[in-house]
Amino acid sequence: MQQQKRLIVDMDGVLADVYSQFLYFKEKDTGIRLSTQELMGKSEADIFGDQWKYLYSKAFFRDAPVIEGSQKVLEQLNKCYELFIVSSATEFPQSLTEKQEWLNEHFPFITWKQMVFCGIKTVIKGDIMIDDHYKNLDYFSGQTILFTQPHNYGSPEKQHTRVNNWSDIAALLL
Amino acid sequence: MQQQKRLIVDMDGVLADVYSQFLYFKEKDTGIRLSTQELMGKSEADIFGDQWKYLYSKAFFRDAPVIEGSQKVLEQLNKCYELFIVSSATEFPQSLTEKQEWLNEHFPFITWKQMVFCGIKTVIKGDIMIDDHYKNLDYFSGQTILFTQPHNYGSPEKQHTRVNNWSDIAALLL
Repeated sequence: MQQQKRLIVDMDGVLADVYSQFLYFKEKDTGIRLSTQELMGKSEADIFGDQWKYLYSKAFFRDAPVIEGSQKVLEQLNKCYELFIVSSATEFPQSLTEKQEWLNEHFPFITWKQMVFCGIKTVIKGDIMIDDHYKNLDYFSGQTILFTQPHNYGSPEKQHTRVNNWSDIAALLL
Repeated sequence: MQQQKRLIVDMDGVLADVYSQFLYFKEKDTGIRLSTQELMGKSEADIFGDQWKYLYSKAFFRDAPVIEGSQKVLEQLNKCYELFIVSSATEFPQSLTEKQEWLNEHFPFITWKQMVFCGIKTVIKGDIMIDDHYKNLDYFSGQTILFTQPHNYGSPEKQHTRVNNWSDIAALLL
């Protein structure tokens, strides 16, 4: 049997809809609901600097909605790839157990053996990485897939393959 | 400037003295204090099977003593290697934040960027790995250093360099 390729999948911005959380807290703080257009091409820190404190609070990560289509496609990918979920988490220590609980709830087919919570991802090796941040993809030695999010919109795509949603990922990898 | 080598260091059994914890809980449960001789060459699960439940409890990891010499030597290694602490943790979800707190307390020079909490370590890449388990070292592509613990005593050393304490590590890597 041919060895399965190792697929590394990010959480925030790929499985977990953190933009929804940022928009919710921004509106809670200011009464203003930003449009997607206003977010385009701007970093999360630039737009949501005043909401950064919520990243250290309970529930920011735990209550994040699931990105559309991710559950169904990831369950299929889990059958034909050696799948790992790799999430930057140690910057926000309370997020560690929240993120594991979130995965257990929304992606019950992912076992504890397939979870990695880290600070930076340069230490991760695999064949394919799906992530929404250049800072992670740029240091990865395998195939790199950029998941579109407002902050990376319009950026030069360099050596990465851009996907706009989980249907694009299914078409590419299944 | 020459690029620093990436050094991957395990926590349990290399920095954190989990045997002390197992022995403490074994004595608490049975009144029997095992001698080091009785542990030699036997897996932790074989000897401490009845104490395995404590791995899921608060304080097992948080209160583990620090292995002698590790703080001083690791602080020096941190200056000349690209250091990451990589710990199997997701099997025991409550251990995630406990382990980060433990590192912050005993190894304050280690930043959140240098911490990785995972299930299995095959996904980690680096130049040198220090670990007390063959299951981790055997899959690592770089130089491998086996830290002596009772469970690996007497095992064939295969391709790994055995060290008995942190002075041995200092002599090898500093």
